[in-house]
Amino acid sequence: MKFTTGGVCAAKGYKASGIHCGIRKNRTKRDLALIVSEIPAAAACTCTRNLVKGAPLTVTKNNISDGYAQAVICNSGNANTCNANGIEIAEGMCALVERELGIDAKNVVVASTGVIGQPLSLEPIDLGMKALCEGLDNSEDAANAAAEAIMTTDTVKKEVAVEFECGGVTCRMGGIAKGSGMIHPDMATMLVFITTDCAVSPEMLQKALSADIKDSFNMVSVDGDTSTNDMVALLANGMAGGKMIESEGEDYDIFCRALAMITRTLCRMIASDGEGATKLMDCKVSGAVSVEAAKTVAKSVICSSLLKAAMFGADANWGRVLCAIGYSGAEVDITKVDVDFSSEAGTVAVCRNGAGIEFDEDVAKKVLSEKDIFILVGLNDGEAEAEAWGCDLTYDYVKINGDYRT
Amino acid sequence: MKFTTGGVCAAKGYKASGIHCGIRKNRTKRDLALIVSEIPAAAACTCTRNLVKGAPLTVTKNNISDGYAQAVICNSGNANTCNANGIEIAEGMCALVERELGIDAKNVVVASTGVIGQPLSLEPIDLGMKALCEGLDNSEDAANAAAEAIMTTDTVKKEVAVEFECGGVTCRMGGIAKGSGMIHPDMATMLVFITTDCAVSPEMLQKALSADIKDSFNMVSVDGDTSTNDMVALLANGMAGGKMIESEGEDYDIFCRALAMITRTLCRMIASDGEGATKLMDCKVSGAVSVEAAKTVAKSVICSSLLKAAMFGADANWGRVLCAIGYSGAEVDITKVDVDFSSEAGTVAVCRNGAGIEFDEDVAKKVLSEKDIFILVGLNDGEAEAEAWGCDLTYDYVKINGDYRT
Repeated sequence: MKFTTGGVCAAKGYKASGIHCGIRKNRTKRDLALIVSEIPAAAACTCTRNLVKGAPLTVTKNNISDGYAQAVICNSGNANTCNANGIEIAEGMCALVERELGIDAKNVVVASTGVIGQPLSLEPIDLGMKALCEGLDNSEDAANAAAEAIMTTDTVKKEVAVEFECGGVTCRMGGIAKGSGMIHPDMATMLVFITTDCAVSPEMLQKALSADIKDSFNMVSVDGDTSTNDMVALLANGMAGGKMIESEGEDYDIFCRALAMITRTLCRMIASDGEGATKLMDCKVSGAVSVEAAKTVAKSVICSSLLKAAMFGADANWGRVLCAIGYSGAEVDITKVDVDFSSEAGTVAVCRNGAGIEFDEDVAKKVLSEKDIFILVGLNDGEAEAEAWGCDLTYDYVKINGDYRT
Repeated sequence: MKFTTGGVCAAKGYKASGIHCGIRKNRTKRDLALIVSEIPAAAACTCTRNLVKGAPLTVTKNNISDGYAQAVICNSGNANTCNANGIEIAEGMCALVERELGIDAKNVVVASTGVIGQPLSLEPIDLGMKALCEGLDNSEDAANAAAEAIMTTDTVKKEVAVEFECGGVTCRMGGIAKGSGMIHPDMATMLVFITTDCAVSPEMLQKALSADIKDSFNMVSVDGDTSTNDMVALLANGMAGGKMIESEGEDYDIFCRALAMITRTLCRMIASDGEGATKLMDCKVSGAVSVEAAKTVAKSVICSSLLKAAMFGADANWGRVLCAIGYSGAEVDITKVDVDFSSEAGTVAVCRNGAGIEFDEDVAKKVLSEKDIFILVGLNDGEAEAEAWGCDLTYDYVKINGDYRT
């Protein structure tokens, strides 16, 4: 298994495109993306658990209820959520794909991201469809254009691809993601589109995705706000020509490992590019009594506003780590807790058995001044582990969100 | 029932004092407070549910287990938490009160607030005890000095007092509070000390306090971080001379109403003075199917980082209110939700039946530019109500917490 290039176009039989159609005012910013598989693909999807659900999620769930899809259309700049005509518009976007490409509207995954509660007009999408479809290509540039078109406050494109042997052939899997603020997925996340040419039955595809997100996207938080439009969609068209995965076994395990490589990488990219973030906070918890406890602790630590602000200031305020563990609700013996901060610049032990130990503040400052910070929590009470990803809380987070709509 | 002056010295038989003893480096900042009742008082207390508990909480719980206390000693600048010798130091503080005033160490409520995980030395407290006790007085200045001495990042003193008729006599109740960051109380809160000369049995006092905090301090959040040292202590010395409240009834109800006036006022003060805050966010939820649902919704709204940032920018981004209601976990029919923003400058309706309605952005900007903002959520699904208090998220919150220890 190895990383490769090409994003969502890395796998055989997928083309992508991304244009500016006019939903966003900024003409230099692409706002409409399309991903198309040459043939219908097995499709799996997970969506937000927010009671307020974007209209596109309802339409997508309906469209892939038969286990198959052939295209993904996604706009940025408007979430098409909390609008009276939301379903109509989302179905309209699918119909435009059918009109232009002859792909059944019922085989389209549709997604939207941006401001909530402002009506989305079909007009710019309608007018842009021709250019969007003419741009369809399997090149790296085309994959990049799609990755750019789904970005909102993201500052970097998020894409990844891997190559792996499965079902007797070489398969590829690639993904793109957007997500920077309103990031605290619950059973789903942000917008993530993953394509593969591996052959997987719809049932096994959904099983693999549902299992994966519990340890990947659901362990990411930028600001504790669960979006109304979170969606991860995964297409598998089987065009690598391998044996179909229809049950658990060696091939399924390999497929899940490839999926995990894609999702974990996207998780780190999303957390690193959290709104206003200057650094990634990666909390690794070990020695927990259960996986549930480990996950609860890891997530509580990366969600603490106080710790996030301390990380921004490169301040080794480990008391805030202990505090977040204490209020997490997880079963923990506080008197056994160890905490270390770690980065490329080294590792510094700051707490043993729930109490502070002496450490060199200069070394700690150096460790915490790096871009990727590991917060290592040893609970010394069992064997379970978990990992969660977050980012620091900065002036720019406040700036970005103080006036997002205007 | 009416507001009066005098803070914790408003009630008969209480004296207070506050000095700088040297725990904090800044010599102009008081860091040690003392409140003393002339006679032993019935005492009630609620503490943090964070698994990491400050050593003073353990000592206090033990000391008031008989239902009585006569003094409160509290330092700022150091939380005396996560230190190996924490209990010893907290007991040492009580012993110093006994040495200086002859009040049994077992009748002392002890509290600490400040940095977690740095050993607290008894020395400055020991050296300061004489001046602290000499300063004891029932004047407004003395009450002020105590209120100041418990402040950390607070920018304003928080004190309040009321006068009420109860048990056939005029009673008074006064309180002081500190709390600005790490504010997200769970079954207790921050540091709050309340004194009254009303006569109440220890059982009824605890009952009144435990009931009250569920709708007062537990509905406040600045940053979602539940402190390790939260404590509310309430002393009732009966020196107003009235009939002892020993069961439910009219007097108990009056007492609870007086307590609610004190606690609600302190809640608003704490939220208004949240770290870096420029405005109070007061979320009033009505029409919920249950009080539980109303409280869950209200708290979710005031805790949303995105909404808090939008309020800082005076941006009427009501979609974030809907989003926070949706992920709150409460039983809500989103299609029935109404939202209004309100302040001294007027009221603007922004959402009806879960969808946006047209509103004047200029009017909304004016409404949201005031200091006290009401977010009115109508769920239109029942009769239950709740209220929660928070504050906006600002550059200064990040600044204050990016380098708190140094």
